Amino acid sequence: MNTYDVAVIPGDGVGREVADEGLKILDAVADKFGFGVKTVNYDWGCNYYLKHGAMNPADMLVTLKDFDAIFLGCIGDAGKVPDHVSLSLLLEIRKGFDQYVNLRPIRLYPGIQTPVRTATSQSVDFVVVRENTEGEYSRVGGFFKSDTPDAFALQTGVFTRKGCSRVMDYAFQLARERKMLGVGQTVGRVTNCSKSNALNYSMVFWDKIFDQVSAGYPDVTTDTALVDAITMWFVKNPEHFDVIVASNLFGDIITDLGAMLQGGMGFAAGANLNPEKQFPSMFEPIHGSAPKYAGKGIANPVATIESVRMMLEHLGELHAAQAIEKAIAQVLSGGEIKTKDMGGTHSTEQMGEAILGTLMAGN
Amino acid sequence: MNTYDVAVIPGDGVGREVADEGLKILDAVADKFGFGVKTVNYDWGCNYYLKHGAMNPADMLVTLKDFDAIFLGCIGDAGKVPDHVSLSLLLEIRKGFDQYVNLRPIRLYPGIQTPVRTATSQSVDFVVVRENTEGEYSRVGGFFKSDTPDAFALQTGVFTRKGCSRVMDYAFQLARERKMLGVGQTVGRVTNCSKSNALNYSMVFWDKIFDQVSAGYPDVTTDTALVDAITMWFVKNPEHFDVIVASNLFGDIITDLGAMLQGGMGFAAGANLNPEKQFPSMFEPIHGSAPKYAGKGIANPVATIESVRMMLEHLGELHAAQAIEKAIAQVLSGGEIKTKDMGGTHSTEQMGEAILGTLMAGN
Ligand SMILES: CC(C)[C@H](C(=O)O)[C@@H](O)C(=O)O
Ligand SMILES: CC(C)[C@H](C(=O)O)[C@@H](O)C(=O)O
Repeated sequence: MNTYDVAVIPGDGVGREVADEGLKILDAVADKFGFGVKTVNYDWGCNYYLKHGAMNPADMLVTLKDFDAIFLGCIGDAGKVPDHVSLSLLLEIRKGFDQYVNLRPIRLYPGIQTPVRTATSQSVDFVVVRENTEGEYSRVGGFFKSDTPDAFALQTGVFTRKGCSRVMDYAFQLARERKMLGVGQTVGRVTNCSKSNALNYSMVFWDKIFDQVSAGYPDVTTDTALVDAITMWFVKNPEHFDVIVASNLFGDIITDLGAMLQGGMGFAAGANLNPEKQFPSMFEPIHGSAPKYAGKGIANPVATIESVRMMLEHLGELHAAQAIEKAIAQVLSGGEIKTKDMGGTHSTEQMGEAILGTLMAGN
Repeated sequence: MNTYDVAVIPGDGVGREVADEGLKILDAVADKFGFGVKTVNYDWGCNYYLKHGAMNPADMLVTLKDFDAIFLGCIGDAGKVPDHVSLSLLLEIRKGFDQYVNLRPIRLYPGIQTPVRTATSQSVDFVVVRENTEGEYSRVGGFFKSDTPDAFALQTGVFTRKGCSRVMDYAFQLARERKMLGVGQTVGRVTNCSKSNALNYSMVFWDKIFDQVSAGYPDVTTDTALVDAITMWFVKNPEHFDVIVASNLFGDIITDLGAMLQGGMGFAAGANLNPEKQFPSMFEPIHGSAPKYAGKGIANPVATIESVRMMLEHLGELHAAQAIEKAIAQVLSGGEIKTKDMGGTHSTEQMGEAILGTLMAGN
């Protein structure tokens, strides 16, 4: 029997509540599909900061490095710790474990309402592959003459050949795989999310690497769209997209908008992958910790359960992953269980239990 | 009689066609409201580049500097000149004339369909104030070891106290003015478009200046939202917004999405303002030049006519500006004249003529 060691970081705000539902599902599929899961819980986050003056112990990466995966709730509570401090936990893991692919599927389950008219379960089925270790998030820069009239700040994006080409390779392989499987509305296309008309070094470089990488995948169609135009197309014709490859910042922005096509943040999950499995990958809902809802049991756990599904895919437990997907689809299209964000009154736990029950009853 | 000198740069693609309709309106309101307009046409753009090896003469700014305003169609034709080269014309004028405010109203005229369910003429009435001379568009950076495996590119955003505070001051004054006039759904609020959780120098600096500037406007409410979250809110609850102040790049991205709330790019206009009128300001539709539609007479001229309206406001011809607004609203809510982007078959000229006719008939 395979047994997986999973580090759990519930984090802040609603993190614990949604993580709990995810873990119940994880245990259940392990039983059902005959593998083992051993979890270890780490209470890092903003409360930890208030006690210890840091979001996590200095040796966090050493502690985590031998796990098979990291399962994260959410991080941040601006009332306690400024966001750019608290979120360093997240960014440290992404970079420290070279999780250079941030994989964010944008898919709409049947039965879910969205504010976008064009968003249907047929038209919304694509994936954003976001660079996750460099680019605009490199944290290179500084301040000049702070607190004087002449003050300025510099923020430098760093775009390396290695960093750009590997994430683009991943995107092309994914498009090829989706084409083979016939997944999605548009098949076998990688869209390059650019802004080279204005960002005359970083994005000109990015485009050039994109052209070079794409030459290796003649079976995959490509196009290039500016990040500003992509936000329009998401809303106007989401069926255009199959796989989008984007820089760290652009990937961040367009996947939040993408969540609107999925019915909201309650449905959007993400995987921070080190595809070579040299280091553990990390799985998380992409929503924030919503401190004001913490402890109320009203957050939608579907995004977190989706991230468990992605974790199982990464670990190679494909049947378990499929079973979760099926159970989510069944509960959502049933339309009976609705959390607050869906306009209903069911609790985090009730949604979790409904999916769990359906999963156990399924075959 | 006041007479205004206006430099006209029709530019590329559909630029000439939409500019023509704008100019007809400009002439008409000048007659009707008793002021003069003298235009001079400049044929700069991608065709000029093919002949002269540059988008415009080297002394462009000298040529333009004594005009009262610049009226621009659109620039760019990637088939002829790479975008990051052609668009330098635009960026050179914005920076050269210190047009530090890029003003982009997001308003939905009654009778217009959009792909966003929440977008109604009541809920969509806000303004993006985009920084227009520095930030991510500073074009500071470079390439290291190009064409080697170790290659990388650096792109540095430059955020100065002067640059941030003056555009924020403009935003606060605008919010105050809108409050006084009772314009919009949400009244007297400036939303700070940030990303300081990840951009630890530029946006941390930006937030700090925002706090300092806002202290001078106790009568204006403020909030701060991350650029990623703002894209969601645009779609989910656009009525939240009154005035948004954003950096150059973020302003660019969110106003393209904003155009979707307005019914598409055919309706979105922008003003590049030097509020002190030390230099001429520039007015343009925010859409691209759509080379494939050039010469077909099918582009929607409303955005361009809107930019004429903004030019007249800037010049102080408020009655003329209001007359244009009224005529556009009347034609659009009538629902009889529809260009291709609106699902109709009317031409650029037919839409222009309809607005012109209504304007002349009005009082
Ligand atoms: C919390 C923040 C630093 C993070 C990001 O910008 O990457 C978040 O928005 C995300 O998308 O995971
Ligand atoms: C053409 C391009 C350089 C420009 C920009 O990014 O500013 C355009 O998108 C705009 O919004 O005016």
